[in-house]
Amino acid sequence: MSAKVIPGKEDVTVVGGGVIGLSVAWRAAVLGRRVTVVDPEPVRGGASWLAGGMLAPVTEAWPGEEDVLRLGEASLRQWPKFARDLTADGADPGLAEHGTLVLAFDSADAGYLDVLAGHLRALGRDARTLTGREARRLAPGVSAVRSGLHVQGDLAVDNRKLLTALAEAGARRGVEFRRARLESLDGVPGPVVLAAGAWTGRLHPRLANAVRPLKGEILRLRPRRGCLPPPPYTVRAIVEGKPIYLVPRADGEVVLGATQYEAGYDEAVTARGVRELLEGAERILPGITEYELVETAAGLRAGSRDALPYIGEVGEGVYAATGHHRNGLLMAPVTAEAVVAWLSGEAPPDEVTAASPARLVEKERV
Amino acid sequence: MSAKVIPGKEDVTVVGGGVIGLSVAWRAAVLGRRVTVVDPEPVRGGASWLAGGMLAPVTEAWPGEEDVLRLGEASLRQWPKFARDLTADGADPGLAEHGTLVLAFDSADAGYLDVLAGHLRALGRDARTLTGREARRLAPGVSAVRSGLHVQGDLAVDNRKLLTALAEAGARRGVEFRRARLESLDGVPGPVVLAAGAWTGRLHPRLANAVRPLKGEILRLRPRRGCLPPPPYTVRAIVEGKPIYLVPRADGEVVLGATQYEAGYDEAVTARGVRELLEGAERILPGITEYELVETAAGLRAGSRDALPYIGEVGEGVYAATGHHRNGLLMAPVTAEAVVAWLSGEAPPDEVTAASPARLVEKERV
Repeated sequence: MSAKVIPGKEDVTVVGGGVIGLSVAWRAAVLGRRVTVVDPEPVRGGASWLAGGMLAPVTEAWPGEEDVLRLGEASLRQWPKFARDLTADGADPGLAEHGTLVLAFDSADAGYLDVLAGHLRALGRDARTLTGREARRLAPGVSAVRSGLHVQGDLAVDNRKLLTALAEAGARRGVEFRRARLESLDGVPGPVVLAAGAWTGRLHPRLANAVRPLKGEILRLRPRRGCLPPPPYTVRAIVEGKPIYLVPRADGEVVLGATQYEAGYDEAVTARGVRELLEGAERILPGITEYELVETAAGLRAGSRDALPYIGEVGEGVYAATGHHRNGLLMAPVTAEAVVAWLSGEAPPDEVTAASPARLVEKERV
Repeated sequence: MSAKVIPGKEDVTVVGGGVIGLSVAWRAAVLGRRVTVVDPEPVRGGASWLAGGMLAPVTEAWPGEEDVLRLGEASLRQWPKFARDLTADGADPGLAEHGTLVLAFDSADAGYLDVLAGHLRALGRDARTLTGREARRLAPGVSAVRSGLHVQGDLAVDNRKLLTALAEAGARRGVEFRRARLESLDGVPGPVVLAAGAWTGRLHPRLANAVRPLKGEILRLRPRRGCLPPPPYTVRAIVEGKPIYLVPRADGEVVLGATQYEAGYDEAVTARGVRELLEGAERILPGITEYELVETAAGLRAGSRDALPYIGEVGEGVYAATGHHRNGLLMAPVTAEAVVAWLSGEAPPDEVTAASPARLVEKERV
């Protein structure tokens, strides 16, 4: 990997030690910047630690959100190299290429899949429609499905391996970690990158009402002896109107997510959330009922006003890198590339333009 | 409290640091014995730590199990003094006198309640039948119930406070704790008390096939802001054929239990167990869906061949105090009293006779 040192530049402060902050810190350190990450609990303390790890812009695509798809796909294209560089510089983030199956269990679901498939084909994306029989052949153990969609381009990453690898690689490149919760940017030296997820709004007036917490609950399960293993794909479905996903990990664990509520800064795991996820998972994969439930957790995604994140300058030398909603892991490479480009006085990738925080001002002016 | 010191007696070894072992150890130490408790993880390591804490022989009574009821009631009568002595000697075990409501949600449940009520009345016990309306008045927030039964004599104890208090009181009386898992009694000095719960069968040939693990899953929930608090009673019901209970704790937490499986020495929390408990609790108390799920756990009760525990000598100076099934907390005082009586060469309470391990031999001889 090339390491272009930029001598004489000021230190960089990154607020937030989740996937965005750690990615920015590592990439900036690779380019020779002295970086400090400020976070009360880096790596494990935020939404990134609880994610499913789907890198799935296509499966999440929906008419009207083309800018999100474009940004997601730009980042997805960077993912294999990002993972290789990270492996070379720190540790393997556990990138998996198993693709996604989207399953329909009733006629309403099947209608949703038809819309999604049509939309993806209109965009020229690879999405193969499956009969119920074909879907069950790909994913033994799933319930009687009506139809499916196989999206081969989607990747998945082991979010915990990734965060650990990013922190290790950063530390080897000299990134320092300060365990603190910043309440203001007063006196913070050098360029500042705001990557504090759902908490970012507190740090800058431009983002104050632009970022909000979107609570999500997520479970981890593990097949016990005698259990059918999980399907070797990310499996997604809508169960009783709620999207649900199962992401297999290399170590045999399955990540089951995720609920979504507007509940303020509430990180309690609720009885309802756990029950709904377990019921939904059983509807998809009946054998999961015998799995061990190894973890229940809740976290706060950073929601934006639209579906796009905020990536760009919000003040002199202050860069936002937040509001990624469900897409933080997916969009980490392109976000880090853009921020590092600005720090170096270079041009960011084109696709990031749509995510500029300038749109907040434009809307306020209208 | 009187402390009758018996000088010159050998040291006592208690195998097992759950509620039975800790109760025996404390009572024996009060009488001046030098006691060592051997357990790889005393207090927190076993089924006692995961219990609901119902002291409810009457509500659990069933025709044909009169010996269990008699032993349970003998112990229940001792509970208030046992708790007072423990408070004086160590710490408050959190005894609560809120009684039990047994609720029926359909006609099958109502039929079960009728049988139970009739049985209890035939035994001369206090059990008041409630209409659905009366039950809801006692327990605001419960679903539309068909009928109920109010059993006022039942107590409940905070199992975790109790275990902590027993260990503290024991330690103050000189009880020593050795963190180890005994695989055999070879070389263990002095009288030995076998109180290792589901693991006791490994320690003595007489108990080898007599004690088996009965797996149970249990949850702890806590009302969040704006939630209706739980009813001020232990609430029991049969939901889809499965018994379920909700026990309120003084700190606001609710213990929700318990599944029961024959699953060998398997202590994994399963997706099914958690889902069934949450569904069952919602059926009883719909508002619980908004509670925080603070703990999921699984443990192994010690099952016996019949419904009675094994309390008595199984060999020269070797005493069994195990097989208490769901009744370990309830029966701890009477079990400890019996064991301490034998250690002192005195007569145990009459009600313990039915629990003698001699019945194992008798059955083998038949």
